[in-house]
Amino acid sequence: MPLTLETPALLLDQVKMMRNIDRLEGRAKALGVTLRPHLKTAKSVEVSTRLSGGAQGAITVSTLAEAEGFHAAGHNDILYGVGIAPQKLARAKAMRATGCDLVVILDNTTQAKAVALEGVPAMIEIDSDGHRGGLRFDDPALVEVGRILHDTGTLRGVMTHAGESYTVRGDDEHARFAEIERSAAVNAADALRAAGLNCPVVSVGSTPTAHGARDLTGVTELRAGVYMFFDLVMAGIDVCTLDDLALSVLTTVIGHQTSKGWVMIDAGWMAMSRDRGTAAQDVDQGYGVVCDADGRVIPDLIVSSANQEHGIVSLRPGARGSMPDLPVGTHLRILPNHACATAAQFDRYNVLSEDGAVSDVWRRFGGW
Amino acid sequence: MPLTLETPALLLDQVKMMRNIDRLEGRAKALGVTLRPHLKTAKSVEVSTRLSGGAQGAITVSTLAEAEGFHAAGHNDILYGVGIAPQKLARAKAMRATGCDLVVILDNTTQAKAVALEGVPAMIEIDSDGHRGGLRFDDPALVEVGRILHDTGTLRGVMTHAGESYTVRGDDEHARFAEIERSAAVNAADALRAAGLNCPVVSVGSTPTAHGARDLTGVTELRAGVYMFFDLVMAGIDVCTLDDLALSVLTTVIGHQTSKGWVMIDAGWMAMSRDRGTAAQDVDQGYGVVCDADGRVIPDLIVSSANQEHGIVSLRPGARGSMPDLPVGTHLRILPNHACATAAQFDRYNVLSEDGAVSDVWRRFGGW
Repeated sequence: MPLTLETPALLLDQVKMMRNIDRLEGRAKALGVTLRPHLKTAKSVEVSTRLSGGAQGAITVSTLAEAEGFHAAGHNDILYGVGIAPQKLARAKAMRATGCDLVVILDNTTQAKAVALEGVPAMIEIDSDGHRGGLRFDDPALVEVGRILHDTGTLRGVMTHAGESYTVRGDDEHARFAEIERSAAVNAADALRAAGLNCPVVSVGSTPTAHGARDLTGVTELRAGVYMFFDLVMAGIDVCTLDDLALSVLTTVIGHQTSKGWVMIDAGWMAMSRDRGTAAQDVDQGYGVVCDADGRVIPDLIVSSANQEHGIVSLRPGARGSMPDLPVGTHLRILPNHACATAAQFDRYNVLSEDGAVSDVWRRFGGW
Repeated sequence: MPLTLETPALLLDQVKMMRNIDRLEGRAKALGVTLRPHLKTAKSVEVSTRLSGGAQGAITVSTLAEAEGFHAAGHNDILYGVGIAPQKLARAKAMRATGCDLVVILDNTTQAKAVALEGVPAMIEIDSDGHRGGLRFDDPALVEVGRILHDTGTLRGVMTHAGESYTVRGDDEHARFAEIERSAAVNAADALRAAGLNCPVVSVGSTPTAHGARDLTGVTELRAGVYMFFDLVMAGIDVCTLDDLALSVLTTVIGHQTSKGWVMIDAGWMAMSRDRGTAAQDVDQGYGVVCDADGRVIPDLIVSSANQEHGIVSLRPGARGSMPDLPVGTHLRILPNHACATAAQFDRYNVLSEDGAVSDVWRRFGGW
């Protein structure tokens, strides 16, 4: 069915999204852990109510704005997964006062003293792979931080995220990183417990490791976010196939530079985002893979360059095929490098039902 | 004065902005051309009313949403500077029916026939430097397109944009690209006139060429956008200095990885955007240059890496200085690579007055 949306517009294939959600929920069940989905990718109440059969259960967020939005929609068990700035504790405390079990994360004594003072429960961030923040499980500061929290009743547990798992390809590698996450988190929990401190929650996760994990003994919960939509970066490391990608950007052909083999479209980086996550992968997909209006991939056609509101579509280097005929006014769909970044360029999802028509519009949260 | 904003937050130094606005308005006057500012960077009515002494004059926009927003605020002379998709003409026509002289751009006969049919005036886009769309001034299609428009009274003129001027450094190089723009546009106008077609408007511009131009004989108007705020990309090609940058992102220190020399902040790519425009320049500024809370640059400190809501601050490679003491809770300000991309991550400007306090909040347009 032809879409009459003005372009650029963000499309969300609900059938693929539900298939992706079911896939990871099945894995979490098989692994015997609670799934705490990260909603930093979706940022939509309509998506959150489609998780866990509509249970409005445990979730992770990346901003307090998301926390407030999802709490208003009925979620009461929320992990704010970015190291807490002391200045944000008043807002976190205000949310807790309205009945939301909002938990923060931290990795140093300054933060621990601040949350202890305010009575906001916290998880200690563990560094499992050197990706960004967190304490190593054998760092003496771990027990020091843990004791500050434990003594004030604010210690909830430990959490880690193997951000480096995005840089490796294939199931065996993701299983290896899942074990790196698991062992770091479990060792940290053991270190706290050996010091007489409570550590009820042991939380791990990223989309690659959540799909790669083979054994999560000692872990209580699993976090992941981009698994709901997937993207070219995830396809590039074999966590999914192109057919699993639920998000795309609808765009219109606005011109040609025939001598250069360029087709100009009205989706530039404002629509696709500046994310070039596949640039470091085996196959660089430019600013996205080009599909026809029905979502079928056009072989070797990518958005090779982008200005603010202009995209340049061309055949990838080394392509053997030829440029298809794409007259001015033709609709195309672009699969994004990074679902989190592309979705953030839009304030709504145009939701496609099974027949390919837009059945609904779902709003997204923005800001902080 | 310490800022009490929650972070990350977008700051706009009004004094620097007004200085930048005055600088280009003075140049346009000296060059004898009308300045038609491009509001794709600012996307704010409060900024547009500070141009040309509040005259609410001619402007350029990159989306119809901007056109509608600025028209509602009193602008009636608007160029929509992205090749028109035929599907957007109904909306453009509706704006014209409310008294706005909205003009579109195009570079092919399909578009020309569509605008001729709808009676929407158009400028023909000229390709001066191979950057993206447009017709070469000596392409026979130029007169063909021009005639379709001329015969239906919809030909307004020609326009070009030297996007490649962003890739060269220094005044002489920008003067060279300004002449490339000028000669391409004037030659195109001459070609149309030689064929008996009207070409009243000859429009050129980009921020580097607007500042580099030495002579604009034959040109009637100049377009530029990022000159109002400037950014690291413009500083990297010597169009401005770091002291001219009017935009920054306020952020808070949330942790450290001391052994790696990392300071973690709560401004990741969601706040800074994924734009890495300085990566191809002489000095790669990572995701931005770090300043103290008052906006003073901290030598050699940059945001070297970014996740969605995390930035990693470190000394640039080869720096001789040492990492300053930046405890958890410290406020910093980050100068962005690309003002258009970073501003687009926020829905408002926190406007700083001369004393460094937030004197106002200005809303930004988003979407299409």
